[in-house]
Amino acid sequence: MSDPVRKLDRDACWEFLRRHEFGRLAFHLAGEVHITPINYAVDGQTLLFRTSEGNKLLGVVMNDDVAFEIDEYSDDHATSVILRGTARVLEGQEAYRADNVPLRPWVSTEKHTVVEITPTEMSGRSFDLDKPWTHMR
Amino acid sequence: MSDPVRKLDRDACWEFLRRHEFGRLAFHLAGEVHITPINYAVDGQTLLFRTSEGNKLLGVVMNDDVAFEIDEYSDDHATSVILRGTARVLEGQEAYRADNVPLRPWVSTEKHTVVEITPTEMSGRSFDLDKPWTHMR
Repeated sequence: MSDPVRKLDRDACWEFLRRHEFGRLAFHLAGEVHITPINYAVDGQTLLFRTSEGNKLLGVVMNDDVAFEIDEYSDDHATSVILRGTARVLEGQEAYRADNVPLRPWVSTEKHTVVEITPTEMSGRSFDLDKPWTHMR
Repeated sequence: MSDPVRKLDRDACWEFLRRHEFGRLAFHLAGEVHITPINYAVDGQTLLFRTSEGNKLLGVVMNDDVAFEIDEYSDDHATSVILRGTARVLEGQEAYRADNVPLRPWVSTEKHTVVEITPTEMSGRSFDLDKPWTHMR
């Protein structure tokens, strides 16, 4: 049987990241692990997202170690890209970088702070799904 | 303007969890935060997932503090449920609990270990999306 899991190379991971805008950020907060959905945009070799004051921001300020995941799936195929990296709040003029990328918040609440994630590790996997029950519906 | 974000109560969160089978697990590993997609099933007031030896398993054995997220979105609406809790490997007879729930692996690789997540905190949010660019396509 052929391996149902295939690895994506680094270029394919970046291409997948550029094609999406919604992912999940995992971060430390007071010794706990937290996870939250975010809208993001790729800027060069980094990701940017906007946030308001709150746990997400406090977490990455206190401990910059983060992980991030995006995925896409249909009945017979799934792709997932995972990265680990460091997060930092963009201050002053740097925050304007967010204006030059398609960083479009999905929800119209106030989010004034721009955070940059710089990946240190990245991996992508593509799976053939074995979901016989979907054919039995 | 009405608040674009609504909270789900605990029953609605569990109902949303039962209706899905794919989420993302965040866990500690050697002081780092990691994230991975998983297939899961609800069993009572817990979640079960299968795993093989590897980072996921090592992580939850070394530190049982985990977070988990599922979501669903369309052009004008998104729902997300987030929980934090503890993970433990089910040993011996307990592992058979996985046989009584619809825990269907999407990928046909060997996964012999069953892990239980017991939520300690759970929250769900439903958003009206403000994505004007989707109407401009």
